[in-house]
Amino acid sequence: MRAAVYKGKQELVIEDLPLPEPGAGEILVKVSHSAICGTDVHAFLYDIAPPGTVMGHEFSGTVAAVGPGVTMWKEGDRIIGGGGTPPPGSEAPLRRQEQYNYRLEGFADTRKRGYAEFTLLNDWAPLSIPDNVSDLKAALTEPCSVAVRAVRLSNMKLGDVVAVLGAGPIGLLTMQAARAAGARKIIVSEPSATRRDTALQLGADAVVNPSSEDVISSIVNLAEGDGPHVVFECAAAPSTLDAALNMVRKKGSVMLVALAWENVPLLPVDWAGKEIQLNTTFGAEPYDWKVALDLISNGKVDLEPMLLDTDILTLDGIQEAFEALVKPSTQVQMVVRF
Amino acid sequence: MRAAVYKGKQELVIEDLPLPEPGAGEILVKVSHSAICGTDVHAFLYDIAPPGTVMGHEFSGTVAAVGPGVTMWKEGDRIIGGGGTPPPGSEAPLRRQEQYNYRLEGFADTRKRGYAEFTLLNDWAPLSIPDNVSDLKAALTEPCSVAVRAVRLSNMKLGDVVAVLGAGPIGLLTMQAARAAGARKIIVSEPSATRRDTALQLGADAVVNPSSEDVISSIVNLAEGDGPHVVFECAAAPSTLDAALNMVRKKGSVMLVALAWENVPLLPVDWAGKEIQLNTTFGAEPYDWKVALDLISNGKVDLEPMLLDTDILTLDGIQEAFEALVKPSTQVQMVVRF
Amino acid sequence: MRAAVYKGKQELVIEDLPLPEPGAGEILVKVSHSAICGTDVHAFLYDIAPPGTVMGHEFSGTVAAVGPGVTMWKEGDRIIGGGGTPPPGSEAPLRRQEQYNYRLEGFADTRKRGYAEFTLLNDWAPLSIPDNVSDLKAALTEPCSVAVRAVRLSNMKLGDVVAVLGAGPIGLLTMQAARAAGARKIIVSEPSATRRDTALQLGADAVVNPSSEDVISSIVNLAEGDGPHVVFECAAAPSTLDAALNMVRKKGSVMLVALAWENVPLLPVDWAGKEIQLNTTFGAEPYDWKVALDLISNGKVDLEPMLLDTDILTLDGIQEAFEALVKPSTQVQMVVRF
Amino acid sequence: MRAAVYKGKQELVIEDLPLPEPGAGEILVKVSHSAICGTDVHAFLYDIAPPGTVMGHEFSGTVAAVGPGVTMWKEGDRIIGGGGTPPPGSEAPLRRQEQYNYRLEGFADTRKRGYAEFTLLNDWAPLSIPDNVSDLKAALTEPCSVAVRAVRLSNMKLGDVVAVLGAGPIGLLTMQAARAAGARKIIVSEPSATRRDTALQLGADAVVNPSSEDVISSIVNLAEGDGPHVVFECAAAPSTLDAALNMVRKKGSVMLVALAWENVPLLPVDWAGKEIQLNTTFGAEPYDWKVALDLISNGKVDLEPMLLDTDILTLDGIQEAFEALVKPSTQVQMVVRF
Repeated sequence: MRAAVYKGKQELVIEDLPLPEPGAGEILVKVSHSAICGTDVHAFLYDIAPPGTVMGHEFSGTVAAVGPGVTMWKEGDRIIGGGGTPPPGSEAPLRRQEQYNYRLEGFADTRKRGYAEFTLLNDWAPLSIPDNVSDLKAALTEPCSVAVRAVRLSNMKLGDVVAVLGAGPIGLLTMQAARAAGARKIIVSEPSATRRDTALQLGADAVVNPSSEDVISSIVNLAEGDGPHVVFECAAAPSTLDAALNMVRKKGSVMLVALAWENVPLLPVDWAGKEIQLNTTFGAEPYDWKVALDLISNGKVDLEPMLLDTDILTLDGIQEAFEALVKPSTQVQMVVRF
Repeated sequence: MRAAVYKGKQELVIEDLPLPEPGAGEILVKVSHSAICGTDVHAFLYDIAPPGTVMGHEFSGTVAAVGPGVTMWKEGDRIIGGGGTPPPGSEAPLRRQEQYNYRLEGFADTRKRGYAEFTLLNDWAPLSIPDNVSDLKAALTEPCSVAVRAVRLSNMKLGDVVAVLGAGPIGLLTMQAARAAGARKIIVSEPSATRRDTALQLGADAVVNPSSEDVISSIVNLAEGDGPHVVFECAAAPSTLDAALNMVRKKGSVMLVALAWENVPLLPVDWAGKEIQLNTTFGAEPYDWKVALDLISNGKVDLEPMLLDTDILTLDGIQEAFEALVKPSTQVQMVVRF
Repeated sequence: MRAAVYKGKQELVIEDLPLPEPGAGEILVKVSHSAICGTDVHAFLYDIAPPGTVMGHEFSGTVAAVGPGVTMWKEGDRIIGGGGTPPPGSEAPLRRQEQYNYRLEGFADTRKRGYAEFTLLNDWAPLSIPDNVSDLKAALTEPCSVAVRAVRLSNMKLGDVVAVLGAGPIGLLTMQAARAAGARKIIVSEPSATRRDTALQLGADAVVNPSSEDVISSIVNLAEGDGPHVVFECAAAPSTLDAALNMVRKKGSVMLVALAWENVPLLPVDWAGKEIQLNTTFGAEPYDWKVALDLISNGKVDLEPMLLDTDILTLDGIQEAFEALVKPSTQVQMVVRF
Repeated sequence: MRAAVYKGKQELVIEDLPLPEPGAGEILVKVSHSAICGTDVHAFLYDIAPPGTVMGHEFSGTVAAVGPGVTMWKEGDRIIGGGGTPPPGSEAPLRRQEQYNYRLEGFADTRKRGYAEFTLLNDWAPLSIPDNVSDLKAALTEPCSVAVRAVRLSNMKLGDVVAVLGAGPIGLLTMQAARAAGARKIIVSEPSATRRDTALQLGADAVVNPSSEDVISSIVNLAEGDGPHVVFECAAAPSTLDAALNMVRKKGSVMLVALAWENVPLLPVDWAGKEIQLNTTFGAEPYDWKVALDLISNGKVDLEPMLLDTDILTLDGIQEAFEALVKPSTQVQMVVRF
C-alpha cells in the first residue's frame, strides 16, 4: 500500500509499505479521505514526529477486513477513524497522565495512520458514518469534535456574545459550534478576506480585519461596549492570546483552542483586574465526537463552504501541501482523497 | 499636615498640606501606619500616578473628627482604611465597569490618602480594629484581603497540594491563606534565602530556589510527581507565569496574583494539553477584608515574621524606600510609621 | 381605566380606577396584552396577594404619556413591561436581600400592574419591541426570559441530552431555550396529549406520558441508558422533583424551574449516590430578557403553537380564567387582550 | 475465625467461618478495629444486605499473610482497609456506572469484610497507617474520608460561614473538615446535649438545639442575618433537608451528606427563589482517604472526643449495638475491637 512516510527534516516521502494484517480485535480500514490537521503541520515544521511515522488522524474509510473476534464491524462498513470509547486501561496515554508537556511528549505515536491507503484500528476505536454524511465530510469529524469540546469546556451560555479569533478550519468550526450553542452574537477576527467571507457565509454576525483595525476596540464595540462573554483563540498568532484577554468582558472567559509553538507575549497588568478566566482544551473525548457527528449530520455545522475543490489533493501532493501550510495561508481545509 | 506628595518622574516630596475637614458623612483619620504596596511602587516606577497624588491605601489609624451626620464612629475609634461595604452606587468605579485596562485606567484616583498624617474617609469605608490586633498589623489587612480573595477565587479545595511562586509580602500572605484553607502541602519558590526562611517559618512544607534548581521539575516532584492542584503566581517575574502553567497538574488551576507590568512570554503548546485554568483576581471586596481581619486576629495569618524592625520607616524615608523597592529585593514588608 | 382588582379569597373584580399620572422619570403605558403567569395563579390560589393588588407582570403596550424628565421614550413607542436595567439601588428588593422566603415575602408588591388598561413604569424599566414581534408575542418575553435564565444557570452544555418535565408554557419555553442552547436530544414528559403534541411540533425528539409509563425508566432509556445530562423540572407536581433526581445521569444537574407550593416528597437514598446537583432559578435579570427577545425575534423560540385563539380572553373573563388555571389544565398560555 | 454474619431480618449471628486464604495479588488482614457505619445500620434496618453477608468497611488491622505476587506489603504491616487506588477497570462498579439507585443496587457486595477476625483485600486496596495514628483511630479514616469528600465537592471557600445539621460521627467529622478548610464560623444543630457538647469541644463556634429553637431563624441570625454560605446536611431527619435549603444564603450551597431512607418533604417555593444549589456526595475516592489520613495524623481532625470507652465493644455485642443504633441515639461512634 502507498503511504506518506515522514523521513524527518520536513520531508514526506510516498513509499510502498506492506499491507497490515488485522490482529485479534482489530480492523483493517481502506482510507477514503484524510484531512490535514494543524497538529501534523506542527510535527512537520518543528520536526517532532519520529522518522518513519505515517501521520494522519482525521480520516474516513471503509472496513476492508476484520481480525479474529471482531463482531462490531463487517467488511464494507463506513467508518470514521476515531470517536469510539476505549475500554478501561486503553485510554490514550496522555489522557491518563496527570502531568505532561505536549510539545515534548505528544508525538510518541509511531503507528501508521491515515496518510496511507490502509490502516489498522482497534474495533472499539471508530464511529459509524450516518448515510447522509459523505466520506469527505466525515473526515472532518475529528476537527469538529475539537471545536465541540472547546465550546463544551468553555463557560459559554445560551445568549452569550462570542468572539472567535482566527477563521481557519478550527476557527470556522468553533464559530459554528458556538452558534449551535446559542451565541447571541458572533464576531470573527481574521486577516484573510477569503476566510472572513466564509465566516460571514457560515453565520458570523460581524467580521473584523486585524490587519487594518484595532481588533480589541473593534470587538469590544461590536460587543455592546462590554466585550464578549467568551473569546475563542483559534489563531495562535503572536498577539492573539493577549488580545483575547484584553477584549473579554469582566468575569468573562477565554478558551485557548489553537496552540502557539513559539513564545507569545502577555501583559497581565492590562487585563488581570477583570477577574477573568483562561481555559485550555485538548483534542476530544468520545462524547465530543458523537456531538460533532450529529451537528454535521443535522446541518448545524455546515462543512460545504470549508471544503473547496482546490483544497482536495492526492497523496502525491502531500509534501507540497505541508510546505504551503507552514506559511500564513488563506485556504480553509486541505484533505487528501485516496 | 505632612504628606508624601508624588511629583511625577519617580519623585515623592514631603510637603505641608492643609488639614482636610470632614464633610457630611465623612470622617477624618489620624494615620498610624501605612504599608507600602507593590501597586504604589508600580505607579511610581511607571510614572502612572498623576502629579499631586498622595498614595497609600493600606493604612490604620484613629478617628480624629467626624463630619455632620456621622453616627457609626466617634473620636478615638481605631480603624483600618478600607473594607467597609459601599452603599449601592458608591462602589469603586472599576468594580462597576464591564471592561477596563488596569494599567491605563487604574490610577485615576487623586485623593490624598495614607502617606499623610491625616486623611478623609466616607463613614461606611473603614473597618473597626479588634483589641488584639495592633495598629501596625492592622495596616496589613488590605494585602491580606488580596491573598484571601486570591484563595477564594481559585479552585483550591481542602487537601489540595499548592505551590506559591514568590515569597514577597503577597506570596507569604497567600501561602498562609492557602494553609488556612486546608492545603495538604505547600511548596514555595523564591530566590531570596531570607524570604525562603520566612516561608518555612510560616509553615511552608518545602521551599525551592529558582535560581539554582529547575523550578518546574522540582515542584512537580515535591507534588508527588503529579504537580500541584493549584499554583499561586505571586512573583510577576518574566518566567513565573509560564512556569506556573507548566507545573500545574492536569485539570489544575493557576491563580495570577502578582501583576507583571512588562511582557511575559508564554509557550502554550507546552501546557495547554492539560486542560488547565488560569484565573485572575483584583484587589478585594468587603467580605475578603472581614475574613482577612479574622485570620489576623485569630493568628491563622501570622504577620510577626513579615514585619521586621528594619522595615519600619518614617515618612521622611519614603523616597528611599520606593527606590529600594523598584529593585529586586529581599525585604518582606515596608511600613511607614507616623 | 378598567382594572382587575384582587379582592382577596380568590376573587378578582373589574373596577374603574383613576388613570394614573406619570411622575418624574415615569411613563404611562397603555397595556395591549397581558399574559397570565403561574405566579399570579399561585398568589390567587393561596390568597397571598394583598387585597387591592392589580397583578400582571407579563405585558406589552404602547407609551401613552411620559413624565417630566423622560427622554428615553416618546408617545407611541411599543414596549414590553420589563427587562430594562435598574440604576444602582433600584433593583427589586428580593434581588438585593441575602435571605428571603418567596412564599412569605414575594407578594409585597402592591403596584397596579398589567391587568389594567393603563399602568406606570420607571423609564428604565421597559424594553423596546422589535418591528417583527407582535404585541401578543411580546407579552410572552417575560416567561421566555425565565426559561432563558433557567438554561443559563443550569450546567447545560452544547450536545447535552436534556429532559423537560411538564409542557405547560414554561416547559415549552424551556424546551425551546434548551434546543437553542444546542441540546443533542430533548425528551419531554407531560400527561396532556395536546401539550405533548405541541412539544413535538416545537422540536422535542421524544415525548413520554407519565400517566401511562414509568417516566424514570422511559427517559433513562431514551437517554441512551445513561439518563439525561440535565433535567428541567417544569411541572411542580408532587412526584416530579424526585423523578428528575432519579433519572438524571451521574454528576448531572437538575434545574428546578416550576415551584411547588405544597410539600413534595424526596427519597435521597435513591439518587444521592450519583453526586448530582440541584439548582434553582428566580425570575430573570435584564440580560435574560434581551436574550429572550432575540430568540423570539429570530424565531428560535416559536410562540405560535403556544398561543391559540381559544386562550386569548378579555379582561372580563379573567376571574373565570384564573379559576380554570388552578385546576390541572391542558391549555398552553392564556393572555388578556385589551 | 469468628465473624458477625447477617442472617436477614435484623439478625447478626456470630459464627465460626473458615480462615480465608489470600489468592494471587491478595493479602490476608487480621482485623484490629471495625467502626460501625450508618450505611451498615441502614442495610440491617431495611434488610437490604443479602443473608450471609459479613459487613464492615471501616476497619484497621495488620497484614497476616500475603498471596502470590504481592510485593507491596509484608506480614505485620499496619493497614487501613481501604483508600488505595484501583488499577483501571477495577474501580467499584457503582463508580463506573452512569446511572444507579443506591437503595436498590448498593448492597450487591457479598464479600466477608470487617466484622470478622480476618478478611481479604486486593494488594492495591489498603493504605499504610502512620506511626502516630493508633489502630482505633485508623479505623475511622473511612468516615473521615467521607467528610473530606463532602467538603471538597461542596463549594465551600476560605472564610465561609458554615452550618452543620446533625452532630453524629459524620456531622462531627464534617464540622472538623470544614474548619480545616477555613470556615470563618461554624454553627452546629443537634438535639442531643452530649453531642452538642462534643461539637463545642471540637471547635464549633455556636450550637443550636432544634428541639427547642426555630433552627432556621437561629442559624440565619448566628450567620450575621444572611444565612450560612454552605450548609452540610448530616442528620437525614425528616425536616433537616428542607431546613438546610431554607437557611442557606442566596446563591449558597447545601451539601447532602447523610442519606434519608424514608421520604423527606420539601417546599420549594420557600427557598428556590434564592438561586441556590444542592449537591450530593458518594463515599470517598482514594485522594479523599489520603487527605483524611493526613488530617487525623496532623491533629486537624481530633478523634479523641468521638471515641468514648463506652462505645468500644466486642464482636459479641454487635447485635445489641445495631439495635441501639436504629433508634435515635446520643452516642458518637461505636467501634468493634477484636
